[in-house]
Amino acid sequence: MKKTTKEALRREIRDAVRLVREKNPMAPSVTNTVTINLVANAQLAVGGSAAMVYLADEGEAMAALGGAMYINMGTILPVYAETLPRTAKALSEQEKSWVLDPVGIGVGGLRTSLLQGFRADKPTIIRGNASEIIALATLWELDDGKTASGVRGVDATDSVESARAAAVALARHTGGAVAVSGPTDLVTDGKSVAWAEGGSRFLPMITGAGCSLGGVAAIYACVARPFVAALTATAIYNYAGAEAEKSAQGPASFQTAFLDALYQATPEAVGAQPFTLETVGK
Amino acid sequence: MKKTTKEALRREIRDAVRLVREKNPMAPSVTNTVTINLVANAQLAVGGSAAMVYLADEGEAMAALGGAMYINMGTILPVYAETLPRTAKALSEQEKSWVLDPVGIGVGGLRTSLLQGFRADKPTIIRGNASEIIALATLWELDDGKTASGVRGVDATDSVESARAAAVALARHTGGAVAVSGPTDLVTDGKSVAWAEGGSRFLPMITGAGCSLGGVAAIYACVARPFVAALTATAIYNYAGAEAEKSAQGPASFQTAFLDALYQATPEAVGAQPFTLETVGK
Amino acid sequence: MKKTTKEALRREIRDAVRLVREKNPMAPSVTNTVTINLVANAQLAVGGSAAMVYLADEGEAMAALGGAMYINMGTILPVYAETLPRTAKALSEQEKSWVLDPVGIGVGGLRTSLLQGFRADKPTIIRGNASEIIALATLWELDDGKTASGVRGVDATDSVESARAAAVALARHTGGAVAVSGPTDLVTDGKSVAWAEGGSRFLPMITGAGCSLGGVAAIYACVARPFVAALTATAIYNYAGAEAEKSAQGPASFQTAFLDALYQATPEAVGAQPFTLETVGK
Repeated sequence: MKKTTKEALRREIRDAVRLVREKNPMAPSVTNTVTINLVANAQLAVGGSAAMVYLADEGEAMAALGGAMYINMGTILPVYAETLPRTAKALSEQEKSWVLDPVGIGVGGLRTSLLQGFRADKPTIIRGNASEIIALATLWELDDGKTASGVRGVDATDSVESARAAAVALARHTGGAVAVSGPTDLVTDGKSVAWAEGGSRFLPMITGAGCSLGGVAAIYACVARPFVAALTATAIYNYAGAEAEKSAQGPASFQTAFLDALYQATPEAVGAQPFTLETVGK
Repeated sequence: MKKTTKEALRREIRDAVRLVREKNPMAPSVTNTVTINLVANAQLAVGGSAAMVYLADEGEAMAALGGAMYINMGTILPVYAETLPRTAKALSEQEKSWVLDPVGIGVGGLRTSLLQGFRADKPTIIRGNASEIIALATLWELDDGKTASGVRGVDATDSVESARAAAVALARHTGGAVAVSGPTDLVTDGKSVAWAEGGSRFLPMITGAGCSLGGVAAIYACVARPFVAALTATAIYNYAGAEAEKSAQGPASFQTAFLDALYQATPEAVGAQPFTLETVGK
Repeated sequence: MKKTTKEALRREIRDAVRLVREKNPMAPSVTNTVTINLVANAQLAVGGSAAMVYLADEGEAMAALGGAMYINMGTILPVYAETLPRTAKALSEQEKSWVLDPVGIGVGGLRTSLLQGFRADKPTIIRGNASEIIALATLWELDDGKTASGVRGVDATDSVESARAAAVALARHTGGAVAVSGPTDLVTDGKSVAWAEGGSRFLPMITGAGCSLGGVAAIYACVARPFVAALTATAIYNYAGAEAEKSAQGPASFQTAFLDALYQATPEAVGAQPFTLETVGK
């Protein structure tokens, strides 16, 4: 059965890559100021369209206009207290897919309170590093946090493997998908866990590799179900990372080659990226 | 007569390119967080100087300090409610040129109200895509909007040709110039319409191509009249776009080559960019 | 004696470069939106870790979490009125090193009032261009400002040499170090003045060359005393600038090559950068 499922998944991945190139869907963002440019350029490179806002009524407007949305907690501003709950509520009401990137979880009172609010107005895809995923599952009381060694600013101190239970619990709670970035990436819908290989040692050396993957997942969520969207974003990042590393002299030439490779990636190349699939027990 | 006018315009374009390289004029900005870095780097690449602010008294200070100014509505923040009207008023009082980029027109209440306010405290140059130009002329009741098919986030859904009447009406209202970006670009002062060729298929694939053109137009507005400033910015973008496309592997290597080409562009090369000129009837 | 001191300094510089590569220290920032991405990527390229925040309680949290911190005044927002004083106080209480970049000094009321507040809650390293350093020493009444020709937006109009007295006065007041960027860079701890050579004519043509140097100085301040941290950041910028200029076609290809060179720089190469050292009289 697994073999069939993998083949079916590969077909869905190829379709997602192709449909985005054909339809140019828009996935607006409320995202941090550090990597906002890379998020937009990555979304454009895969064939999508970007639009970023900060104000509450604009978040609501974008929830209506976009095919899906991307919310990143990296550098929250006072206005987020109003914007994020209203945007998440609008997304829920309209049953739109959206990606949550819980960057910086654990830092600051407003951030914690906003993240707690998303337990009810749920994201469709959650993307983070292992420490962030464990911390969010713990905050939402879906995980006992015992596997966690802690978050340090924006960097993970936990292995992807240690976040498996938390990721599965989050996916089951939201009914969507969770993507954990790391040397080997994990993507789960709570029923299956895909482990994806590839990428580059340079990816953690450019700021926004993870954020822009989240933005790209939102683009694919305009045309695919959450699990496939997260898996397609992970696969195209692994493909483009490996391609870019071939010519990179350092992190900046890597970033240039990486965005070019996102642009050049074909449905076939992305669909052929290696991953393994396992079924999650009850 | 037209031939003479075109030759005179070409001379003015060459002068603008040269004067900016000589004088390093500063055109401060209130601009969006997505493309703010590209705006600054493009302004520097053509020989100008950049400075970005958010606060109201700093907008006023910059109106006094700069040779011209750039205001972009992309990602408005709550403080813009105070900053933009006060800055526009200061610019009007000091009779300084400024460029308005009505990005995202139609999204959100504050954005609409700020854009309505600019009908009285007028920009000198308006830069946008076709849909934004039609929407602004409609908001200001200078156009019936009948040619509009609508704005979708930050992307145009209308052709440049369909925005001709709106652009002319806006230029006549402000007494300045309007630049519409697209496959063929339109620049008008309400009396003449220039149609400019060139650029690259990659320009719409990098976020901020339009924004940074607006910032560069503000730099040229420090040394040239609005119509010439808008036309020079359009011409140097068409030149650099075509140059950059020669070596680009994708949008990111294109952006690098594009900024390098802005830096390398000579007055002669920019002044030789193709455009046609037509006179507007009453 | 000077020769010995220079050799000792070179050893400390090599140690700083090496220790950062080994320990990956985090230096969080409150910094401007124009160059925030370059600051983060430069910090990552030298081997450090980045995290950016805007809110007051997050500034305090970062003061506790980081090894040192970077505060840049480029594009202040209303929330800075609360965030910067509380963050500076937290840094003082915990005796953490931090770098102040007084960009835009002289523009706006809040900026001036915040900079005045830092006279008491002192930075460990102050980094700026000559005009900014003279203006800050004047604001703090440590210099009569007679050598100043003024600040123009973000650009210096004074020579580095003319800022020598102001820089020494600031270093003596804070008990830390001051770095003045220019064709020849000055770094002082109030007792010695180092003059460093190198860099590139392209460095002033990319926005954020100075800001990112400040962010990198904060990274080195996690593992070295202020004078050495400022000198190491200056030396690695001079090294990487000269390396990058070899292949650059313009400012954008320069920036790519520059970040790659920051990544490639060895302790030996940075420690071998030329500088002269003079003792300051009383």
